[in-house]
Amino acid sequence: MLSFTSLTSNLIEELIQQFGPEFIKYDADTIEKYSHDWTEDFHFPPAAVVFPTSTQEVSQIVKWCNENNIPITPAGACTGLSGGMLPVFGGIVLSTLRLNKILEIDKRNLQARVQPGVINEELQQAAAALGLYYPPDPSSKGSCTIGGNLAHNAGGIHAVKYGVTREYVLSLEVVMANGNIIRTGANVLKNSTGYSLTHLLIGSEGTLAVITEATLKLIPLPKYRLVLVASFPQAALACEAVSAIFNAGITPSALEFMERDAIVFGYQFLKLSDKIPDEVQAQLLIEIDGNYPDILQQEAQQIGEVLEKFQVSDILFADTPSAQNEVFKVRRCLGEAVKGTTIYKEEDTVVPRAELPRLLNKVKEIGKIYGFTSVCYGHAGDGNLHVNIIKTPELSQEQWEIEIPKAIREIFQFTIELKGTLSGEHGIGFVQQPYLEVAFSGVEINLFNNIKKLWDPNGILNPGKMGLISG
Amino acid sequence: MLSFTSLTSNLIEELIQQFGPEFIKYDADTIEKYSHDWTEDFHFPPAAVVFPTSTQEVSQIVKWCNENNIPITPAGACTGLSGGMLPVFGGIVLSTLRLNKILEIDKRNLQARVQPGVINEELQQAAAALGLYYPPDPSSKGSCTIGGNLAHNAGGIHAVKYGVTREYVLSLEVVMANGNIIRTGANVLKNSTGYSLTHLLIGSEGTLAVITEATLKLIPLPKYRLVLVASFPQAALACEAVSAIFNAGITPSALEFMERDAIVFGYQFLKLSDKIPDEVQAQLLIEIDGNYPDILQQEAQQIGEVLEKFQVSDILFADTPSAQNEVFKVRRCLGEAVKGTTIYKEEDTVVPRAELPRLLNKVKEIGKIYGFTSVCYGHAGDGNLHVNIIKTPELSQEQWEIEIPKAIREIFQFTIELKGTLSGEHGIGFVQQPYLEVAFSGVEINLFNNIKKLWDPNGILNPGKMGLISG
Repeated sequence: MLSFTSLTSNLIEELIQQFGPEFIKYDADTIEKYSHDWTEDFHFPPAAVVFPTSTQEVSQIVKWCNENNIPITPAGACTGLSGGMLPVFGGIVLSTLRLNKILEIDKRNLQARVQPGVINEELQQAAAALGLYYPPDPSSKGSCTIGGNLAHNAGGIHAVKYGVTREYVLSLEVVMANGNIIRTGANVLKNSTGYSLTHLLIGSEGTLAVITEATLKLIPLPKYRLVLVASFPQAALACEAVSAIFNAGITPSALEFMERDAIVFGYQFLKLSDKIPDEVQAQLLIEIDGNYPDILQQEAQQIGEVLEKFQVSDILFADTPSAQNEVFKVRRCLGEAVKGTTIYKEEDTVVPRAELPRLLNKVKEIGKIYGFTSVCYGHAGDGNLHVNIIKTPELSQEQWEIEIPKAIREIFQFTIELKGTLSGEHGIGFVQQPYLEVAFSGVEINLFNNIKKLWDPNGILNPGKMGLISG
Repeated sequence: MLSFTSLTSNLIEELIQQFGPEFIKYDADTIEKYSHDWTEDFHFPPAAVVFPTSTQEVSQIVKWCNENNIPITPAGACTGLSGGMLPVFGGIVLSTLRLNKILEIDKRNLQARVQPGVINEELQQAAAALGLYYPPDPSSKGSCTIGGNLAHNAGGIHAVKYGVTREYVLSLEVVMANGNIIRTGANVLKNSTGYSLTHLLIGSEGTLAVITEATLKLIPLPKYRLVLVASFPQAALACEAVSAIFNAGITPSALEFMERDAIVFGYQFLKLSDKIPDEVQAQLLIEIDGNYPDILQQEAQQIGEVLEKFQVSDILFADTPSAQNEVFKVRRCLGEAVKGTTIYKEEDTVVPRAELPRLLNKVKEIGKIYGFTSVCYGHAGDGNLHVNIIKTPELSQEQWEIEIPKAIREIFQFTIELKGTLSGEHGIGFVQQPYLEVAFSGVEINLFNNIKKLWDPNGILNPGKMGLISG
């Protein structure tokens, strides 16, 4: 194991002297807030939390940690689902709370320059006010930060048409472990100039450097949206319909899947009294967008024709923003609903889109063998299925701790067989580390560790994550 | 300088023994063919060229080179414009000529699995036959290979709407310097599982590993295309019109710029007898695509209205494939036309789209100071301007060798000031190495060198490129 220095009160005093009392907090509330994210019930208190207000301050504190051998873990809104911000070795959490400015929206070049603490939805709204669009939008968009989105290469419901975070990053400003500040990439739409440090940093979960600024690509905001809710008598039929829509030449702007149990969780959480008819075993939420309402109507009809081949029992149209919000509310609340109702483990499996029915069947099959119940939903258009394994009363604590990880390993092995992988958008973080070897050979894991060492020789940046050597 | 072992006739004999006579060639024609690409008039003969037919053979030959300290430089069709495949240290060129199979087109998942020697246009045609589309298409699409496209993160005329090569790569199979074979990524549309080795390898110009297979994303083929050719009385007005089109909410599928001198070169090369009216000082080729012809007509009209504000003198519509090919023929031939007519240096400058008029003006201004003539054209929608500096009779050889590089440095410095960079799609390769420090600090160049060392400790993979330490 890595051996770090404790953040003693003397050292805290040193930081207060250098940066002032607003910079560092270690009261019980702050420590509690930064001890956990939205991942299961993990809890790792840091010794203190720092709140820098500039790149310069980030550079100084990171350098200080490097010189004093104190772990430093960047954190945004702590909404992650893989435990990426958990300060598992204690030390300092670097909060981006006060690095929260949209520095510029360049309407001439369709670009936004932002600090990492900007909340995703705030950027979306600022862009929309100018007729522009920043598509990546995790379910937690109302609270999650751009910094966290970059760290985990976040997706969201619109990734299916518009791509993930990676596809919107032009350049980054980052602070390296030794305090060096570098700018990667350029503010251009194409770049063949040197190794892409930008792309290496995206998805590196704060283990290589601390992102202090990002220049992001924006696109024109589509003018119209139309949403269809399609109900199916079998979950597998809904999954099969997904590929058929794309093969009809239509690329929906969102294509979400919920199995019945997920809908039930959502309804209970939202206290909706509507009865879900027995024949509804799964739903697809299908959103299409564009600039021409007539075309959307035409495409909606085409989609309807495709769905008929898969025994769709009911199609509901939502063509106003409020009706659409209503429809997506159930889908968006699911993470919180499952978390609020029960103890669970969430997996972020992803496979080629057409393999989704096979993945879903396998999850249920493995569930039968290991005796677990699962609630599945996710971004079906991307082949990204969130598998929530529920700790039902039938499962003993021993089963939960010893048998369920074996079941998860089997699920992951199957995603790899299908040419998929472990995580589509949540990251490896803390919780998926034991399964890394399912996806990667020793050669690749060795490369990861060597890349880590290049950027952060003392291992102070977010240690204990991504399966990287911690000693 | 790196010191390599010569490929003696004994060593060649050893390779023939191991792989058979078809595997290795060193006759004069083969050596000549692999001594140069399309970059200026550089000429570096390799000692021999190998033609592996499998990943296993690539692994064996790379391992052999690593053990024997012999440089090995991968090459596709040798159409590069930065000298990326020039075997500047001699040794072995690894040709992908016989690794040229489209292994699979997966219509269910919209994916293609290809070997690196597949010609870009062959993949496009195979996809189109199934109603699918692989958008990246450099001007050399009829001859360039997917491997070369991956090595340089190639763009092409459709990148403006559909993105560059990077955005179509799901996973790679590569051979490392020590012969290890790894698969990076997964065949999925979103991936947050470990550092992205895939994205680090894209654009690494064969200096980190040899790509032996790629799984690429395909999309539905748009059904209709419409092309407008707009003529302007001033080049700067054409450049200004580019941003205005995007700001009107339209994303053309191609948006190409040619200044008058470029059009003249193209006409001469194609032996077209049409007279170019005096008032045509620049043209934009604007392509829009989609599934609905009525919408395209409507958007074409909108574009026409935008262009009127920029003193457009003439707009020609090309709505049949043959008329469109005719129009793009001039643009596509320009690289060859300039090369075939004169001695020149080509720069691949890229800036944020709206800065294009400033870049063009600056190039002309620097030209006046240093006394050079330039022919400019390129992917204006991406802010990617190809600047061809012509060796007119007025320039002495001394000016060409000593003063012009200073002028190029000034052009690059200006692209950096505009938040652009050195190369949009051609790469650093051999010719842009002296300018790397204009774009990067010592910290970044140091990172590049350390990354290189991780993958290729002996420096045998395409040495003498990308400004990496060669000794």
